[in-house]
Amino acid sequence: MPPRFSVFIATSLDGYIARADGALDWLELVAAPGESHGYEEFMASIDTMVVGRTTYETALGFPEWPYTGKHVIVLTHRAAAAHPGVELYAGSVTELAARLGEATRVYVDGGKVISQFLAAELIDDLTISVLPIVLGSGLRLFSGGEGEHRLALEGHRSWPSGLVQLRYQRVMPG
Amino acid sequence: MPPRFSVFIATSLDGYIARADGALDWLELVAAPGESHGYEEFMASIDTMVVGRTTYETALGFPEWPYTGKHVIVLTHRAAAAHPGVELYAGSVTELAARLGEATRVYVDGGKVISQFLAAELIDDLTISVLPIVLGSGLRLFSGGEGEHRLALEGHRSWPSGLVQLRYQRVMPG
Repeated sequence: MPPRFSVFIATSLDGYIARADGALDWLELVAAPGESHGYEEFMASIDTMVVGRTTYETALGFPEWPYTGKHVIVLTHRAAAAHPGVELYAGSVTELAARLGEATRVYVDGGKVISQFLAAELIDDLTISVLPIVLGSGLRLFSGGEGEHRLALEGHRSWPSGLVQLRYQRVMPG
Repeated sequence: MPPRFSVFIATSLDGYIARADGALDWLELVAAPGESHGYEEFMASIDTMVVGRTTYETALGFPEWPYTGKHVIVLTHRAAAAHPGVELYAGSVTELAARLGEATRVYVDGGKVISQFLAAELIDDLTISVLPIVLGSGLRLFSGGEGEHRLALEGHRSWPSGLVQLRYQRVMPG
């Protein structure tokens, strides 16, 4: 069975995943004590991650490596610092997906990476957490060019902080 | 009491309110028999509309005028066909809002108009219906420049078609 490719990401109501300078301070809005939005469960369900270079460099800067036990593939065309379990990749995402036949579930993360996988018809499911804020500018989750994709709503849930999580499966064409 | 300024609009998951050519065919996705998403109730709650020129011209093309009984203000800098109850306006939205003191609730419609009202801190509440589709391109609801606005989630609801409706009040600064 081929792996599932999954998106799990937070956006502002206006579709930004970070401020223009990459800042994520606004995520604090929903960092309520005792409010868990399923990230730990999601991480426990995946064995492989495909991330962009920014996500990788952010992770390298953490006091502790956040992806222990995961096979991490970084999409980048430039050299980058090495880390155990991390592989740099500069090819097409379709070829990459074909190489990941041993994986069970792949976490596709980062705006540009998600857009590439969607455009290549490779995403199986998306969990989008919408935060109760309009940012007015920033880095978009969907910057255009993803192609058209029908989705099936699997569920939705809200938390007292005002976060609404939407869960979709992509409807396979044909 | 000043009027409330309200948004009621449908978007794709990637934040588009129309295809690049203005087409709305994808709204058919959620046009399920017997599925009402609250538009009639919303229209019954408003007495005034502020719309862009495209919305106005679309309405003029309908076999029947869809905004009977509403005071309609069209934001435009160019001459346009006249219609009873319709006023063309080319000034600032802040001045316009100040002039609408007699209204009870104002429907602010169209991507550019909504952006202008948000940027001017004039929107009180937003009802956003998210359709289960990624379009990949089109006219955005939030094209940038709206400024930062905290929102309070008032409710959310889904329908069998996969439409999820999110209701927010804008949190007034300070």
